Amino acid sequence: MAHKKKGNRIRAGFQGEFGAFSQEATIKLLGAQAEAVPFPRFTDVFDALVAGDLNYAVIPMENTLHGSVYENFDNLLRYECRIHAETTIRISHNLMAPPGVPFRKITHVYSHPVALNQCLDFFRNHPRITKEIYYDTAGSARMVMADRPEGAAAIASASAAEIYGASILKRGIEDDRQNFTRFFLLARGGDATPVRSPKDRKTEWKTSIVFSVPNQAGSLFRSVAAFALRDLSLTKISSRPLRGKPFDYLFYLDVLGHVEDPALSNALRHLGELADMMKILGCYPKGDW
Amino acid sequence: MAHKKKGNRIRAGFQGEFGAFSQEATIKLLGAQAEAVPFPRFTDVFDALVAGDLNYAVIPMENTLHGSVYENFDNLLRYECRIHAETTIRISHNLMAPPGVPFRKITHVYSHPVALNQCLDFFRNHPRITKEIYYDTAGSARMVMADRPEGAAAIASASAAEIYGASILKRGIEDDRQNFTRFFLLARGGDATPVRSPKDRKTEWKTSIVFSVPNQAGSLFRSVAAFALRDLSLTKISSRPLRGKPFDYLFYLDVLGHVEDPALSNALRHLGELADMMKILGCYPKGDW
Repeated sequence: MAHKKKGNRIRAGFQGEFGAFSQEATIKLLGAQAEAVPFPRFTDVFDALVAGDLNYAVIPMENTLHGSVYENFDNLLRYECRIHAETTIRISHNLMAPPGVPFRKITHVYSHPVALNQCLDFFRNHPRITKEIYYDTAGSARMVMADRPEGAAAIASASAAEIYGASILKRGIEDDRQNFTRFFLLARGGDATPVRSPKDRKTEWKTSIVFSVPNQAGSLFRSVAAFALRDLSLTKISSRPLRGKPFDYLFYLDVLGHVEDPALSNALRHLGELADMMKILGCYPKGDW
Repeated sequence: MAHKKKGNRIRAGFQGEFGAFSQEATIKLLGAQAEAVPFPRFTDVFDALVAGDLNYAVIPMENTLHGSVYENFDNLLRYECRIHAETTIRISHNLMAPPGVPFRKITHVYSHPVALNQCLDFFRNHPRITKEIYYDTAGSARMVMADRPEGAAAIASASAAEIYGASILKRGIEDDRQNFTRFFLLARGGDATPVRSPKDRKTEWKTSIVFSVPNQAGSLFRSVAAFALRDLSLTKISSRPLRGKPFDYLFYLDVLGHVEDPALSNALRHLGELADMMKILGCYPKGDW
């Protein structure tokens, strides 16, 4: 595969600031050698990927507490790109401050409101500490290290602490430890068929599909039958209503198998007979989601 | 139905501050006479509902851009409550300031980061205006009206403008107008069977179910078949992986029909044979979702 590199480094775009969980996902997917390139909006990342300025994009798709990021499923449908890999990151919030500042001196803590709201037990147990909102989790770590407001700490990822040189005072202060985000590694181009090495017989593959069916009783049943009749396992199915669009519902579906396996390839042809619209979003090694 | 009232008013809990979109949903569901009671967290609302301090809770479940709020689907499963009604609110962001302040004087705009990020085109078109983060959309309107910082405006709902006496300078400044949130009106108690008036033959009913099936190829197919074989229409289906839980997947399903209709009642008994766990979350008049 041809890699778009600047110098020798693979470039992967993500939304957010350095130290965001998306950057952690980038390192997990591509290794620390890859250059993680921050963008303000998800569509900025997709635009740069499609324009050829990036080799990959690393995009959050689903979180165990907050659900699917529909916006990015829309982007997968709209942009010519394909899923190359998936991974899962545990969202763990850490309290951090400049080195040498002890926990007892901390009087206010900056972070994104979602992160602050995921650490309410910590604030309940330490009533002397006030919550201060900031635009971004990683950005709050950067600001606390750059400006050093007295008594200030930040809540951010362990990698933000490392990047900005902060000391972690308390690890894992989130209320709910079952907080995971699924990320896709996306590559440019609409061809969803990955090259499968004939030597690799161990990889378990997953294929992601989006489709719409006529709004009739039994449409979904017939679509699911295309897979069930061939003993294929679905690992995700999700419907969503579409407003102001020519079809009523979109379905997102993950199925175990490679698009070139005869059973899956037949199931996809069968689904194609039933669906008004169908797009294969990618075929990739099954990750830990 | 017995209503828990203080004085004569029905009390409905919501998460957020006065002027939040959840309060708009409360008014749409129950009328302006109901007392909307704000709580800091979703679980605080559920706790108060179950404890009998509220007649109803008004809870956001799904947004067209951001997806399902899994956290609240968890709460539906965990708390003894049932869905009584559903409604949809269009999330429209408005720029507001104290009366008399003209748009040309606005130099910075406060709001929740999610709302600011949904209005990026506005900020791009008005580069003189800076974004300032605030904890809550409605709270930013309250603060701008109370403290009146020079050149400050807020981005919040039209009802926040009304509640805090702000003037709307620009309506509907969100980038994407297809931004809708589905809310449930929840009542206490696990009995999901609503009283159906024999006179009412026009209401279209919807029933919401959560269930888990053994992790086998074809489990979902057989579950969907219970409805398809009886010509029942599914309007939502969504799977989610469960970590550290005794079953691998949960499915949420909305089906058109009343739980006492013979076809639906048979389908639910059929699903009960297949499922490891099943809970009827409610049966309610179909809304505009």
